[in-house]
Formats: sequence, C-alpha cells, structure tokens
Amino acid sequence: MNKETLKKNLREIPDFPKPGILFYDVTTLFKNPECLQGILDELYELYKDKGITKVVGIESRGFIFGAALAARLGAGFVMVRKPGKLPADVEEETYQKEYGTDTIQIHKDSIEPSDVVLLHDDLLATGGTMSAACRVVRRLGARQLYVNFVIELTNLNGRKAFDEGTEITTLLPL
Amino acid sequence: MNKETLKKNLREIPDFPKPGILFYDVTTLFKNPECLQGILDELYELYKDKGITKVVGIESRGFIFGAALAARLGAGFVMVRKPGKLPADVEEETYQKEYGTDTIQIHKDSIEPSDVVLLHDDLLATGGTMSAACRVVRRLGARQLYVNFVIELTNLNGRKAFDEGTEITTLLPL
Repeated sequence: MNKETLKKNLREIPDFPKPGILFYDVTTLFKNPECLQGILDELYELYKDKGITKVVGIESRGFIFGAALAARLGAGFVMVRKPGKLPADVEEETYQKEYGTDTIQIHKDSIEPSDVVLLHDDLLATGGTMSAACRVVRRLGARQLYVNFVIELTNLNGRKAFDEGTEITTLLPL
Repeated sequence: MNKETLKKNLREIPDFPKPGILFYDVTTLFKNPECLQGILDELYELYKDKGITKVVGIESRGFIFGAALAARLGAGFVMVRKPGKLPADVEEETYQKEYGTDTIQIHKDSIEPSDVVLLHDDLLATGGTMSAACRVVRRLGARQLYVNFVIELTNLNGRKAFDEGTEITTLLPL
C-alpha cells in the first residue's frame, strides 16, 4: 500500500499519553476500509510464501491485523497477553521497561515445534514487548520465526532489541 | 460451521477466573486454522448481504473475528475499549455490573450516520457490555445495527439486556 496514503490516514495526537509524546493513532487506519484492505493485502504478499502456520498478535492492537492475516493465510491465531488474562497453562517472560519491568504470557500449548510463526504488532517503538514475545515463542519451540509491525519509529532503534538474524518487516517507517 | 466441531475444539476450564465458574476458552478456536476459517466463513455468510460498513469489536477478544470479518466484508474496523485506551475524543457509556459499574469508550468520529454497524464479541453472558456498546453506537448515529457473538451462554438470558428488535445472532448456544 502507498506509504503516503497510509501516513495521511494515520492520526497524530500530541501529548498522549503524556506531555511531550507524539502518539500515532492507528485506529484511523483500522476504520478506513481501503487502509484495512491495503495493509492486509501487503502483509499477505509479504508472508504468503513463508509457510506460516501461526500468527501471534500482541495485546491488544496486534490482534487486529494479526487475526485478519492469520485467516487470510490459512494459519491459526494466538494471543500474547498481559498476566492473568489467559485461562490455561502459560509460559511467560519478564522484560525491562524504562521504569521497572513488565511481563507477557502465552498459552503453553499454543505453539508446536513444527510451527512457522509470524509475530505481529501495530507499532515498533523500543521493541521490548516484541523481543520478549520472540523469546517466549522460541522457548515453546517454533521452527522458524518472523516479525512484523505496521509502523516503525525509526529514531528509537527498536530493531536493536532483537537477536541478530531476526527477520523484521515494517510497512511504514516514520 | 458444524456446532459439534466447534464445541469439541472449545476448551472448558473449571474454576476460572474464580471457584464455581466454568470458563469457555475460545483461544483454542482461534489457534485452530479450520475453526478460525470455519467461523469466519459462517459470519461472512450471515452478514455479506447486510451492507455492513463498520464492524465494531469489543475489547479485546472481540477484536479477533471482528477485524477479520471487517476485512472480509470490505468494511472498516472500530474498537470499543476500556477507559483511557483510546487517544482521541471519545463517547462513553457506563453500565451496571453484578458489583458496581463499568465504562466503555469509542472514538466519537468512528461511526457516521450513514454507517450500517455490526457489533461483535466472542461470548454473550449477561449482555451488559454489548448492550452498552449498542447504546453508544446508536448515540453516534448509526443507520442500522446488528449484533453477533460466537458463543451464547443461554442460561444467563443475555438477550434480555438488549432493546426489543435488536437483531442478534450467535453461532454456538451452550
């Protein structure tokens, strides 16, 4: 999808969630049928020949394109969630944030050793949550792993949070 | 999709989130490609001729089929979220829970008077959240409104929470 069209449809909100932060509001991409379709088409083209068997979406905006893409690819969809939200046995990973730590969880039986996994979230900032998700998915034994974000905040160098060799794509670098 | 296949793939978890509650874990439907596809196909058949322009998903399991269905229907996707999560101007609705109240929010500019809206969530229990979502979507001026859940807990009589005439479908009554 044309990057200018995407950028034009992305809403910028100054000082959210706190003063000094420019927030990119992806909900304006979701609600626009042309953007929703265009992004999904582009993701499908990127991953249709990779043999993806599971798409993992990061809570909760990562569920949107994650689930739609899983359906399009004929893969299953799996959620990475904050603690206490998943009802069955979980594998978890704690990671460093700017202040303190955070933890994510995934169902233990959601990934099998034969799985080729695409992890998806809406936006790459520092990469802390997604790199933790990669570690936990690798521990569950995925055979191969890909990572995608719709938007990348390039000045935050989020790609440095990932193991070398991790295949990361983003549709709109800002 | 065959109801027995759905039921067989739905995980039951006793005593979650608290003792005495039997929790239906829909994540096992999401992760199974046949169930993901089968449910989506059935939803598409139900709504393809209704002229749906927006699918509204309820945070956060409602985002899964909500977004996939919006993409399949060529509609836009809109989130109903808990307070403080949506960055632009919101319309909100507070509703009664068993103990105390809860509030949901939606972006004010997410629905237009010309919209035909399908509201979706994974499971109909008491119907409190979804009926509040219907009220807030009506206030924003949707022309027509449909409601869908994958699962319905029939013994909780959740349909009684909705205005008479609300068109509700569920795929798996339990």
